[in-house]
Amino acid sequence: MNILQIIEAKKRGETLADEQIAFAVDGFTAGEIPEYQMAALLMAVWFNGMDPRETASLAGVMLASGAELDTASLPAPTADKHSTGGVGDKVSLLLAPLAAACGLCVPMLSGRGLGHTGGTLDKLQAIPGYRIHMENEEFLDIVGRAGCAIVGQSADIAPADGRIYSLRDVTGTVDCVPLITASIMSKKLAAGPRTIVIDLKTGSGAFMQDLNQARELARALVAVGESHGRHMAVLFSDMGQPLGRAIGHANETIEAFAALRPGGREQAPPDLVELTAELTAAMVLGAGLAPEQQAARAQVDEAWDGGGAWTALQRWVAAQDGRLDLDRDDFGLATAPLAAEVTAPADGWLAGMDCRQLGYALADMGGGRKQVEDPLDLACGMEFLPAVGDKLAKGDVVARVHCDRSDEAEAAARRVADTLVWSGQEVSARPLILERF
Amino acid sequence: MNILQIIEAKKRGETLADEQIAFAVDGFTAGEIPEYQMAALLMAVWFNGMDPRETASLAGVMLASGAELDTASLPAPTADKHSTGGVGDKVSLLLAPLAAACGLCVPMLSGRGLGHTGGTLDKLQAIPGYRIHMENEEFLDIVGRAGCAIVGQSADIAPADGRIYSLRDVTGTVDCVPLITASIMSKKLAAGPRTIVIDLKTGSGAFMQDLNQARELARALVAVGESHGRHMAVLFSDMGQPLGRAIGHANETIEAFAALRPGGREQAPPDLVELTAELTAAMVLGAGLAPEQQAARAQVDEAWDGGGAWTALQRWVAAQDGRLDLDRDDFGLATAPLAAEVTAPADGWLAGMDCRQLGYALADMGGGRKQVEDPLDLACGMEFLPAVGDKLAKGDVVARVHCDRSDEAEAAARRVADTLVWSGQEVSARPLILERF
Repeated sequence: MNILQIIEAKKRGETLADEQIAFAVDGFTAGEIPEYQMAALLMAVWFNGMDPRETASLAGVMLASGAELDTASLPAPTADKHSTGGVGDKVSLLLAPLAAACGLCVPMLSGRGLGHTGGTLDKLQAIPGYRIHMENEEFLDIVGRAGCAIVGQSADIAPADGRIYSLRDVTGTVDCVPLITASIMSKKLAAGPRTIVIDLKTGSGAFMQDLNQARELARALVAVGESHGRHMAVLFSDMGQPLGRAIGHANETIEAFAALRPGGREQAPPDLVELTAELTAAMVLGAGLAPEQQAARAQVDEAWDGGGAWTALQRWVAAQDGRLDLDRDDFGLATAPLAAEVTAPADGWLAGMDCRQLGYALADMGGGRKQVEDPLDLACGMEFLPAVGDKLAKGDVVARVHCDRSDEAEAAARRVADTLVWSGQEVSARPLILERF
Repeated sequence: MNILQIIEAKKRGETLADEQIAFAVDGFTAGEIPEYQMAALLMAVWFNGMDPRETASLAGVMLASGAELDTASLPAPTADKHSTGGVGDKVSLLLAPLAAACGLCVPMLSGRGLGHTGGTLDKLQAIPGYRIHMENEEFLDIVGRAGCAIVGQSADIAPADGRIYSLRDVTGTVDCVPLITASIMSKKLAAGPRTIVIDLKTGSGAFMQDLNQARELARALVAVGESHGRHMAVLFSDMGQPLGRAIGHANETIEAFAALRPGGREQAPPDLVELTAELTAAMVLGAGLAPEQQAARAQVDEAWDGGGAWTALQRWVAAQDGRLDLDRDDFGLATAPLAAEVTAPADGWLAGMDCRQLGYALADMGGGRKQVEDPLDLACGMEFLPAVGDKLAKGDVVARVHCDRSDEAEAAARRVADTLVWSGQEVSARPLILERF
């Protein structure tokens, strides 16, 4: 076997054998196959794709390149959720303790944000003291005790994916369903959950704009998960507008936690509540803790309203040494002062936006990364108040921008104002959950 | 401009601007663009191709990466020939002095053999004393005095092509018409000939098996040459059987030179005579030394039969310090003894062969390279006597294998015997020149 034959085979549109995929990935990870040959192979995959068996094989080889957590000793069924990323997506921060309160164990390995989307790990770093790095043993111990834990993916998780992703990023091979699938699944599988729920986002704020492409990705993700013996579920959700009202790190964490606080659900943005509850219910159902979706959802609602999730949240954050000031609305997290506002230019209905621009507006203020090593301003952010379909009067506040530097706040506000589309006629609200798979 | 945008553009099937092509090639040659990004771009080109303007632009950028010979001071019109390579192709060794005798100047830069095909440069190295490396000034001086010279391509000719070819070789991007075209033309243009004739070979002994693909390559070669102001002509010739009878370095040189010796043409293999004369006539015609093909061919025949080519040959080889013993049939070149024979297994017609296997049989004996740095046995070789369509009786000699090592000779003979296809019914001869373009 040699790598050139493997490149040629994929170039001609052949399917690769498991051994060929392992040869290429293991050789590359070991430094025996040079980057230029892997780059050529990745581009051939971009053009000719991979079938479900190849994709599962690739995910498996990348998984096997690193550590796999042994979740067998955990005291409850394990489940996890993955989101393909969007603007204002703070679901994991609510979902993990909700699922824990429903009787699941949630061992969540999370990543940093890049481009226009925020990373769960970055949001958690806004909590004073919160430790995002620890040994696998301590991580599993916290999951066992608190029901959930969220930490950064350590270097020993799917190192092959890390190396291949870096190469994809600079060779134009990021936007490729089988490569995306294998990358997501190799990391998700490593944490050992038996049930994996995917929040597959489409729309202007998502990486995938197109529902058909999202369906293709969903099928691939499910096929890989099932071939590794996991229970899979996919919800397709809308990312044509921000999820919830808060965008930014500290203020997204605050919005998430406030929603779980006793009585918080009623004040929380309805889209955030609904999507979180449905994704958590899919985990409960997938893990076999409820016989069907409605019963699962009732369990989630009970965990939310009965205070179980709030208790689980405190137990989890404390276990990771995070300090929350429960007497304060902002939980003691540092946020930037109000520095600019966006208002409606005339009476009318909010008809839409390029949601990605809201992510870039945050990045403009230092709240996003262009490169992995960029430092982040966790305190800046914005509240985006209306939803598409809402009627506003001229001068009504659309967004409040929080930032330490007023010129940057103004620039962000202009970017937000520029992307909004207004209509003089009534506009329908956007459906939140588009399909289930 | 950045390389990732260029990769993405070609990936999406866009045509690249001249500036983008220059940015990529110059950046790569300068070491500023890493191999993995060039590999991704080359694979995207493999899938999405390049149009004639892009291909001409690529050839031009690779040409401009190195030296261009100034042939303006030469005393006669310049012309050159390029063959896409085959088994037993010693045409350049006859064609250069023939063209010189017709009044052309032939500045020929030649390469080494790789795989199943021999290189003109290697064949010339079988001549004692023949110098294949010299400064460009001396090279042009010999062309001016002798009418032709054949030397190795120096490192300052199209260095970008050298670097890109090395990368193509290990990334599965060799078999790509625009890349082949730009590679051929960047080197051919560098030697400065105003007329370029292409011998485009198809069939089992050629790199291209398919006439349609060859036509595509021909169109691309002509477009690039014409866009650089050169007169172009293409002959499509058959490589389904060896050209001439000799295969191997010393014995191909001997066969070529013997054909030019007074009275040699009648004993020479008719296919070698015909293809050489037609290619040379195309050079004469292209350079404007004859009004039409038949008159050009008459000039070539006169140069051959009148001894002009034989004189030109001696002048050329002597100018490059080659020593030919004109009293000997082998010109004093070292050849290996007869070591094995292949005979016809039964009465019948020779119906065909995988001609590439004859090249590999030579390589088995040390007369071919697997890698560029492999040393060559220039003395081994074979005579392959019949042509497809010839009737042989059982036991008639098909091939004589010459080698210092009898076991290797036997292996080569077996490989030759195994690839021959025999028929009990009459078989047509293969046409030699298939098309002109």
